[in-house]
Amino acid sequence: MTRHTLLVHAHPRSDSLTAQVAGLLHGRLTGAGGTVDVLDLYTEGFDPVLRPADEPDWEDREKTYTPEVHAHMDRILAADDIVIVFPVWWMAPPAVLKGWIDRVWNYGFAYGRSRPRLAAKRLVWLALLGNPPEEIEKLGLDTVLDAQLRVAVSEYCGIRDVSVRSVYGTELTGVPKDLRPERVRELLAEAGTALDGALSR
Amino acid sequence: MTRHTLLVHAHPRSDSLTAQVAGLLHGRLTGAGGTVDVLDLYTEGFDPVLRPADEPDWEDREKTYTPEVHAHMDRILAADDIVIVFPVWWMAPPAVLKGWIDRVWNYGFAYGRSRPRLAAKRLVWLALLGNPPEEIEKLGLDTVLDAQLRVAVSEYCGIRDVSVRSVYGTELTGVPKDLRPERVRELLAEAGTALDGALSR
Repeated sequence: MTRHTLLVHAHPRSDSLTAQVAGLLHGRLTGAGGTVDVLDLYTEGFDPVLRPADEPDWEDREKTYTPEVHAHMDRILAADDIVIVFPVWWMAPPAVLKGWIDRVWNYGFAYGRSRPRLAAKRLVWLALLGNPPEEIEKLGLDTVLDAQLRVAVSEYCGIRDVSVRSVYGTELTGVPKDLRPERVRELLAEAGTALDGALSR
Repeated sequence: MTRHTLLVHAHPRSDSLTAQVAGLLHGRLTGAGGTVDVLDLYTEGFDPVLRPADEPDWEDREKTYTPEVHAHMDRILAADDIVIVFPVWWMAPPAVLKGWIDRVWNYGFAYGRSRPRLAAKRLVWLALLGNPPEEIEKLGLDTVLDAQLRVAVSEYCGIRDVSVRSVYGTELTGVPKDLRPERVRELLAEAGTALDGALSR
């Protein structure tokens, strides 16, 4: 069966590692015979600020949200798999991605039903962290992304097949310039392996 | 000495509990002889999307960011205390607040200097959570806000006097309508007590 993937990514520059990883994953997914809907939150100009029209109404889970939000909900519903690639800023997703969750993963759609609509989706969060893993562990922050993205978002929405994968050490400032292309190749390979691992479970 | 507080809050409605808490704290701070700069991220129309002009340049900590960002930096620098009131959505701040951190708490300003510029500030995060504490604990999420906001943001910027306080059970849907005003009074009292506790340490 052909699988359809919603591939979400969020970085201000189209030459970013995030965009390169998204491009690589796009190639892998289509190469495997799948179809892909690419959602680049930056180039699509997604507005992450939740306003009253998109506030949940706890007394009406059939609430009609803004057309932009419903369009995004439709793209999520159409997908078998959702893959979200993002840089980690302050041990959390960038605001534009946080706001995509705030607005689109709304009451009555993503949660708040006895039969959760997204339960059968396969969801992969692919986090790109500037620091090496030792620094994150030393600060006791190594479980933060998993707690927020797997437990508080994904499982809260009834999604059981969820992976939070991290690629570390993406910051290249300390790497000599002539070694950077090789380092980028390594990071892309790691990202590809992380996706394969998440999707072959 | 008169203390100057930057009071940040973020909620789409001006009649929200968040706004009411901010109003209460404003009164307490001025009542104690302090001055207050109120930063309502929604009414000021803050754009939380970090674009290339506000990306950190790891090779230039003196980088000039956008004028909007520098105006916010000036408001932070002018404050002795920073108090941030917000609803917790998905165990994290709303996107507009996340983006205020992403854009304004930038390299060379908030971090990346041997003598951190914000180290002497007193910082209070006041989180309003819809759920009761038992539900948060049961999911193993009771340390997530502290890890993200105290460790990954505040202490990373060298701020030692930082408190992350939570007021739970702010969702009133399950409370009979005639009992809601009393419940709101209780929640406001809790928020006031939390601020007093944080500022009297």
